[in-house]
Amino acid sequence: MSSLQAVHNIPEICARLGITDVVLSPGSRCAPLTIAFARHPDIQVRTVPDERAAAFIGLGLAQAQRRAVALVCTSGTAGLNYAPAVAEAYFQQIPLVVFTADRPPEWIDQLDGQTIRQADLYGAHAKGSFTFPADTTHPDAQWHAARLISEAIGLAEQFPAGPVQINVPLREPFYPKQGEELQFGPVRVTRELPGRSLLPAAQLQELRDAIRNTSRVLVVAGQHRYNADLLLAVRQFAAAYQVPVVGDLIANLHLPAAAGYDQRNAPLGRQDVFMAVPEAGLKEALKPELLITFGQSLISKALKLYLRGAKPAEHWHIQPAGAVADTFQSLTKIVRMEPADFFAELSSDSHVTSQQEHVAGSIPVEPTNSAEPQGFDSNRGHATSQDATRVAPRPQPLGEPVRLTWASADADAPAKVAYLRPWQAAENWATGFLREFMQQPNQPFNEFTAIYRALQQLPDHTALHLANSMAVRYANILGVPAGRIVEVFANRGTSGIDGCTSTAVGAALAQPNRPVVLLTGDVAFFYDRNAFWHNYPTPNLKVILFNNHAGGIFRLIDGPRQQPELEEFFETRQPLTAENTARDFKLRYLSVSTFTELESALPVFFAAESGAALLEITTDSPTNAEFFEQYRAAVRSSFSTP
Amino acid sequence: MSSLQAVHNIPEICARLGITDVVLSPGSRCAPLTIAFARHPDIQVRTVPDERAAAFIGLGLAQAQRRAVALVCTSGTAGLNYAPAVAEAYFQQIPLVVFTADRPPEWIDQLDGQTIRQADLYGAHAKGSFTFPADTTHPDAQWHAARLISEAIGLAEQFPAGPVQINVPLREPFYPKQGEELQFGPVRVTRELPGRSLLPAAQLQELRDAIRNTSRVLVVAGQHRYNADLLLAVRQFAAAYQVPVVGDLIANLHLPAAAGYDQRNAPLGRQDVFMAVPEAGLKEALKPELLITFGQSLISKALKLYLRGAKPAEHWHIQPAGAVADTFQSLTKIVRMEPADFFAELSSDSHVTSQQEHVAGSIPVEPTNSAEPQGFDSNRGHATSQDATRVAPRPQPLGEPVRLTWASADADAPAKVAYLRPWQAAENWATGFLREFMQQPNQPFNEFTAIYRALQQLPDHTALHLANSMAVRYANILGVPAGRIVEVFANRGTSGIDGCTSTAVGAALAQPNRPVVLLTGDVAFFYDRNAFWHNYPTPNLKVILFNNHAGGIFRLIDGPRQQPELEEFFETRQPLTAENTARDFKLRYLSVSTFTELESALPVFFAAESGAALLEITTDSPTNAEFFEQYRAAVRSSFSTP
Repeated sequence: MSSLQAVHNIPEICARLGITDVVLSPGSRCAPLTIAFARHPDIQVRTVPDERAAAFIGLGLAQAQRRAVALVCTSGTAGLNYAPAVAEAYFQQIPLVVFTADRPPEWIDQLDGQTIRQADLYGAHAKGSFTFPADTTHPDAQWHAARLISEAIGLAEQFPAGPVQINVPLREPFYPKQGEELQFGPVRVTRELPGRSLLPAAQLQELRDAIRNTSRVLVVAGQHRYNADLLLAVRQFAAAYQVPVVGDLIANLHLPAAAGYDQRNAPLGRQDVFMAVPEAGLKEALKPELLITFGQSLISKALKLYLRGAKPAEHWHIQPAGAVADTFQSLTKIVRMEPADFFAELSSDSHVTSQQEHVAGSIPVEPTNSAEPQGFDSNRGHATSQDATRVAPRPQPLGEPVRLTWASADADAPAKVAYLRPWQAAENWATGFLREFMQQPNQPFNEFTAIYRALQQLPDHTALHLANSMAVRYANILGVPAGRIVEVFANRGTSGIDGCTSTAVGAALAQPNRPVVLLTGDVAFFYDRNAFWHNYPTPNLKVILFNNHAGGIFRLIDGPRQQPELEEFFETRQPLTAENTARDFKLRYLSVSTFTELESALPVFFAAESGAALLEITTDSPTNAEFFEQYRAAVRSSFSTP
Repeated sequence: MSSLQAVHNIPEICARLGITDVVLSPGSRCAPLTIAFARHPDIQVRTVPDERAAAFIGLGLAQAQRRAVALVCTSGTAGLNYAPAVAEAYFQQIPLVVFTADRPPEWIDQLDGQTIRQADLYGAHAKGSFTFPADTTHPDAQWHAARLISEAIGLAEQFPAGPVQINVPLREPFYPKQGEELQFGPVRVTRELPGRSLLPAAQLQELRDAIRNTSRVLVVAGQHRYNADLLLAVRQFAAAYQVPVVGDLIANLHLPAAAGYDQRNAPLGRQDVFMAVPEAGLKEALKPELLITFGQSLISKALKLYLRGAKPAEHWHIQPAGAVADTFQSLTKIVRMEPADFFAELSSDSHVTSQQEHVAGSIPVEPTNSAEPQGFDSNRGHATSQDATRVAPRPQPLGEPVRLTWASADADAPAKVAYLRPWQAAENWATGFLREFMQQPNQPFNEFTAIYRALQQLPDHTALHLANSMAVRYANILGVPAGRIVEVFANRGTSGIDGCTSTAVGAALAQPNRPVVLLTGDVAFFYDRNAFWHNYPTPNLKVILFNNHAGGIFRLIDGPRQQPELEEFFETRQPLTAENTARDFKLRYLSVSTFTELESALPVFFAAESGAALLEITTDSPTNAEFFEQYRAAVRSSFSTP
């Protein structure tokens, strides 16, 4: 076996284990990996020179495709530029397989160029770090080389998914002879068949009984990708027990569960509005005794602080494996099940029945790339809608809601309804309040309202990417139009601004037939401009940039806005507009600074035929702060207990 | 003591220990650090939003000022964006004190925003990682808080200098009340007085005898900042023993030693040219028996490979402390002395005499910021030119070379001269060859020649920053004009392209009255564009960008240029010009694509009154490759043994 054969086998093993996309940042040391991946027929390699952007583009691809993506970089600090995306992947549970080319071990710390200490480069932010053998002449080393690639991919995809590093020490010569054909394999791969975690029937019954016998049960969803099974099960559960379900926009509970649902038990999403109401009576009415949560982080700080203060007697978190955060300082039970299974099981009296009531739908988006998850989709459960055991009701076409009714499984229904009612009332009040407030005439031009209007016109089937820090907060207050199919993403694993644009670019590459809309502020946007610095077209990418020429968040929060350091050391005013960036990267550029301009720009901007486009909404930071303060004051004064 | 008092004491301790500059990237969690540093009267805080650029700007400041600089960032991935600069600082031995604000330990892994695992964030690339106490109510915790800041700064500055992390967990409230005045201290600091490593007289005599009794002694300098004492001692040594001294441009041996020197023993710098000559006879003639090295990495791959092949019987590396690389696979002795002391001691018969012959000069650059090192300058030796024991000769003004002569200390002088002569002949041949080759008429417009012509016009007292990857290689071949005072910098600790521009920006901020010239290629330039994204003027910064619209290095090296993947997966062609970037950041923009345009642009570009300027030299990658190949062919065919 030639000295590079073990390296040439890597793409074959990756392809056999379901990796189809590689993001490569060019270099010399990584040449054998470059050539092997580039020549493999089943793998698409894209080249992105800035490794920080490359890694977030890979993350965006993996997030959209719901399967692992590989990154390849050269030796030295290249791999360190991956670190922000690797940390985001770790906490957002996205599988990335990071290949870092390296010098062989004997040349570390010998003053050779582009040589750092690459073993375990990502420390506590990778699920594992593997070292490819430097020498594969011995048959055991060949076995080791192939085995660790399978192991690493398996580890990346196991729930909770995440990033792994494979450090690949390479000795020269790196290049095949001119005209030489590479051989890929033969290889043997090790596939991991993930199991499904279930509780014994008796224990499930105890949980059902506890829910039945508790008046004030609240379900709160953290960040979660779209999952039709889960959506249906949660709504079924909410209907069966008459309990409120609350989720941020990034929980994607607003998406249709396809088969229709009882509209009275639709999940709630206006908590950022009604939780800001200083009404002790309302807060008291909303207090849960039993809190049930699933998913990852919450955006809504108001809800989070409220629940920490409310201190429910019981807090169950539903998660099949992995460490669990005690986000509300109340955690009493960790239920090791898929949330979809948990809610389906709990809302039926026997889990056999519930299995058959299971319904799946899918968002009818671009078919090739957003197809059903192919492997790592461990959040979603392992039984898919193709399972032969699935029967009625069939998935319904979207847009034809069917009102289903379930018999209440709850012995304590009147008390439950009494608890559900103030949640629904608060939600309804917030919806009406927001509509009225946002549509009031004679507003000064400000980013909050401008974003509201832009969100109103999101095309159906949009993948909406929300940048940190204000974009995600504004959108979580404002929501997306009811009934519109908008799947929402945000890098809330680490909540960094560093790769939001690149992540959206990755999503746009993954789903060329679906609109990908990025909502971002100026600091996040200019930070990550190298997201566009590559040669791959993204005609479906639409960037809404609200430029207040500063880190405007600091003017919106108490603390910094009272300090003399506000403008220089917090906001850090910056004069850039995106016009030159749009010119550099051939984005159709629309700039607005009045509502009239905004209204005429939006249809052009969102039109598919406009191609990759950037809508720059220029506002004034003090005006934004003043308007947002008016909004907050109105929230505080407008609510009256229903 | 208020809960934030320990944090407010941090800038006072920093200032007392010589830190004057802080680079801050704004955030919420770091607010107490922001406010404390911003309000401290002895510290200048600059705000740079992209942490990757911020850290390299800090590195450039520290490199230019020769003292530690502090970085401050918020929690989450902010600190991970520092990682490339931290690794560069580690391997280039530049002291950085990195403050990463964090949530308190109980909130780690609880799904709060911007929360990662920040302890020991830089792993093997920081000299140390410290955790500031989260709670400083106990007096022992107050002592700990103050002590670890002193310890961390001391560790960063100890030879070999490098980066340290101080993770600072912070609980709300972060902000002082409106109008509240901060108190800084009182504090007690611990200062470290670095010792000076000397060998016993008998051992020094053994080393002298070994040098005397060896015919073929070669001195090779790795990367080293300008140090007048060292330059004089090395030249004194070269004259005393008649040995060749070779150094790359980044060794800064070409700078004047102020007091004049025997021109026949000037250090050599054309090794990239003459080492490429395929003459076995020459290579044989240059073979050392004893190789003496100091400093850090070599650029010249030809020299490095030659020395690895030459396998000298003895290789001594002179370094006062720290790990030593066996760069040439020949290391036999590590001499724990300052190189300046070593060469001064060895070239005199008694170290008392040599002490008194010690002479120091200084490059007359901008006085305020590039003053004599204040603390960490452990490469330079601890006795400064102000020492009372220093007598004649006095430092001479630059530009008035005085030819000094030393009696030869060498019993074996004729054999040494026989070894020195071919080195000098090769150098002289290379100098003449280069001049002739570069000035040949009828060249196509190409980057190699364009850079040669630009370098010829560098202003005196320039700080020249060479970007990786081709800029530093071209410049090392071409050199700077003889007699011109040009101090040379390059990020050769890790040889990354990721922060070359930011480092030059930091240098320009540190030395506002000195021209800072950055020579860079397009990939390094666009990679690090956020270097300019801040509000601090750098009118002394001149950027020479050679844009071949690709990673042109890959067309210059064997291997990739023969592969079908060359253009897409190695060069990665990119269409950007710098015009929009120059417009965004208000750089005076000059664009040239012929020699005539270049010649008329250079005086305008270098003129001080042009302010911050960017000269874009647009060339064609295949033409560059062809011309460079002609150069290489000419080197191979032009040399004849003298």
